[in-house]
Amino acid sequence: MAATGSKLERLSQLLAARGFVARMFNDGDRKGSYRFGPAGVLLKHNIYNSWWHWMVSTQESSFPVEETRCWSPQANENMNNGFSFFLEVSEINNKRLPFSLIHVCKLTTTTQPLEEKLLIDSSSLMQMTLLHACTPSSSSRAFDHWMRYRLSWWKKFAVNPSHFTVEREVNGTESGSKILYQFPWGQETIETIINKGDNPFKAGNEEQSKEYQFKFERKLVLPHLIECSTTLETSMMAILTDAYMEKGVNGKKESPVHRVMLQLHPALAPYKIATATSGSKTRELQEVASHIAKEFHTEGVQVLHTQEVKPLEKHYARNDELGIPYTVIVNDTTLDSGLVGVRDRDTAVKEQVPVSKLSDIVKRNSQSTL
Amino acid sequence: MAATGSKLERLSQLLAARGFVARMFNDGDRKGSYRFGPAGVLLKHNIYNSWWHWMVSTQESSFPVEETRCWSPQANENMNNGFSFFLEVSEINNKRLPFSLIHVCKLTTTTQPLEEKLLIDSSSLMQMTLLHACTPSSSSRAFDHWMRYRLSWWKKFAVNPSHFTVEREVNGTESGSKILYQFPWGQETIETIINKGDNPFKAGNEEQSKEYQFKFERKLVLPHLIECSTTLETSMMAILTDAYMEKGVNGKKESPVHRVMLQLHPALAPYKIATATSGSKTRELQEVASHIAKEFHTEGVQVLHTQEVKPLEKHYARNDELGIPYTVIVNDTTLDSGLVGVRDRDTAVKEQVPVSKLSDIVKRNSQSTL
Repeated sequence: MAATGSKLERLSQLLAARGFVARMFNDGDRKGSYRFGPAGVLLKHNIYNSWWHWMVSTQESSFPVEETRCWSPQANENMNNGFSFFLEVSEINNKRLPFSLIHVCKLTTTTQPLEEKLLIDSSSLMQMTLLHACTPSSSSRAFDHWMRYRLSWWKKFAVNPSHFTVEREVNGTESGSKILYQFPWGQETIETIINKGDNPFKAGNEEQSKEYQFKFERKLVLPHLIECSTTLETSMMAILTDAYMEKGVNGKKESPVHRVMLQLHPALAPYKIATATSGSKTRELQEVASHIAKEFHTEGVQVLHTQEVKPLEKHYARNDELGIPYTVIVNDTTLDSGLVGVRDRDTAVKEQVPVSKLSDIVKRNSQSTL
Repeated sequence: MAATGSKLERLSQLLAARGFVARMFNDGDRKGSYRFGPAGVLLKHNIYNSWWHWMVSTQESSFPVEETRCWSPQANENMNNGFSFFLEVSEINNKRLPFSLIHVCKLTTTTQPLEEKLLIDSSSLMQMTLLHACTPSSSSRAFDHWMRYRLSWWKKFAVNPSHFTVEREVNGTESGSKILYQFPWGQETIETIINKGDNPFKAGNEEQSKEYQFKFERKLVLPHLIECSTTLETSMMAILTDAYMEKGVNGKKESPVHRVMLQLHPALAPYKIATATSGSKTRELQEVASHIAKEFHTEGVQVLHTQEVKPLEKHYARNDELGIPYTVIVNDTTLDSGLVGVRDRDTAVKEQVPVSKLSDIVKRNSQSTL
């Protein structure tokens, strides 16, 4: 990659060149449109599944709900997303508190696209929301819990966890927190966690609000609601920006950019490993590489296996830009010894390992989602 | 469930009552709208992930792509979905054949809803498409492969694999197959597999079509394309219909409906296991049940744990209707022996097992996705 322009320009170029994401310019009236190449779709898929794992699969009493169409935020009905399921889900949960509603929904926005930003101005955003209902006496504890829990999700996958910060704010009877991230164009809210109290239940008339009452310590009370809300596109952009790394000659930051990479967490990386060959027996080496790739595919591990014959340094450069944690190198000695080289993206260190150990190395980090 | 009306009406009632899916009637001008409760969203999630596992994770050279907005089939651009990425992806794959493009896209339809059908008339359909590019000489073999592969996916999760049938058809220069399923309202195509030959590359002028040429056996050839296309909603409805089972008294089909259930494949079932307690020491039993549920949650296994104290038969009836493969029963002897009862949905047989073996039983089937 040529190191010209601002950092955002260089990142944008890399994301377009490597098939993550690119703004569509020739899209007529379709403003804020983006194309996602293979690396981008796989990354989004992994981020979404990680969120789902943290918010649904590993949570007690967490119930996802959905409607065919979503309300748009312009109609100011955004807050009600998923809320119409409240009584239904409370029945499923045996009228017990706490429980959570999970609501994922594609929002179409009409905001003007902002050329100095990327992705977060998309005309279509996948909103991912948790609405947690709890007893009034536990709501501030629950609010703290969700705040810490969500922040730990962001930090878990970050190269620079300290770049994800929290700002508290009180707005009337609601208190809330924002998780903020410093993008190249400035700070943005990437997630909101709001303690809505029992306000959402008081919007209608008194009769209606009675429907939402729960028995708690021999009294009838209205639940309190905590809402955590982010979008998949914002998450993707924050994670990509955090992972973007420019290294100068000899690793010095000041010298001209020598090497760029995406230090994506192995659990989120689009590809967990890539194959490369180096040696004279091209045909045999490719056969071994294909066999290795097939083994990974059988296990459902995403591997990039393009059978390109080119210098290893070019493989490494491409793989670093794609954020691939490992490159496996099949060379002439592999055919005799059964040993392959494994090159680590972050350290650039190569080690020789038996082919049979490859799967353990790749899975060690890529499956650590909690 | 009261066994009245047609089979479709009884199935619809069950799906609405158990939070799978229900048609929205009071939706103003939003025709063909549906609400998905927790069981429905979880089932869709599992079907989608299974499709992704078969079509992306375990496939060599399978590249997912996406654009912010999708074309609608009305605009007759449907066929082009994902196709604009062809050259880009061919570059990523080192200009080698074969490779596949994967394209998932929400389609908004304006078809009139059909009250005698369910779900497949939804105004919003998640279209899931594979576009496989191969050499001309391998295209009919590739077409057969994908046909068999897709059919095996449908049959893999079916209670009645023979209800999924294939119809071949030739349409001009394209040959194709339809996978058909017998719904209560009649037969419908649930997936199409089409051998488009090199037609899609010939749509433009000759100059344009040259861009798509590949070197193959010392000649320049246009690739052939195979397209497999289904929708998530159609898949969900076929899988639900196939899983729906009405049993008469003593298991006789002719006698009045005694027991209804969804025999969903454990890999697709929204919940893999549910907890129930039976005995006098309610508090202690619930604690054990909560502990068991927590263990499953930690492993990311979806468990339904509602802490309801009700007769076991009522637990079983609800769990059968939700398609939950196993119910774990914690009773007074559990506290002394460490043994729990495990009741199998399909056979209604109960066995006593040590708590420590529970996880193996549940995972045995639910993780078999290929």
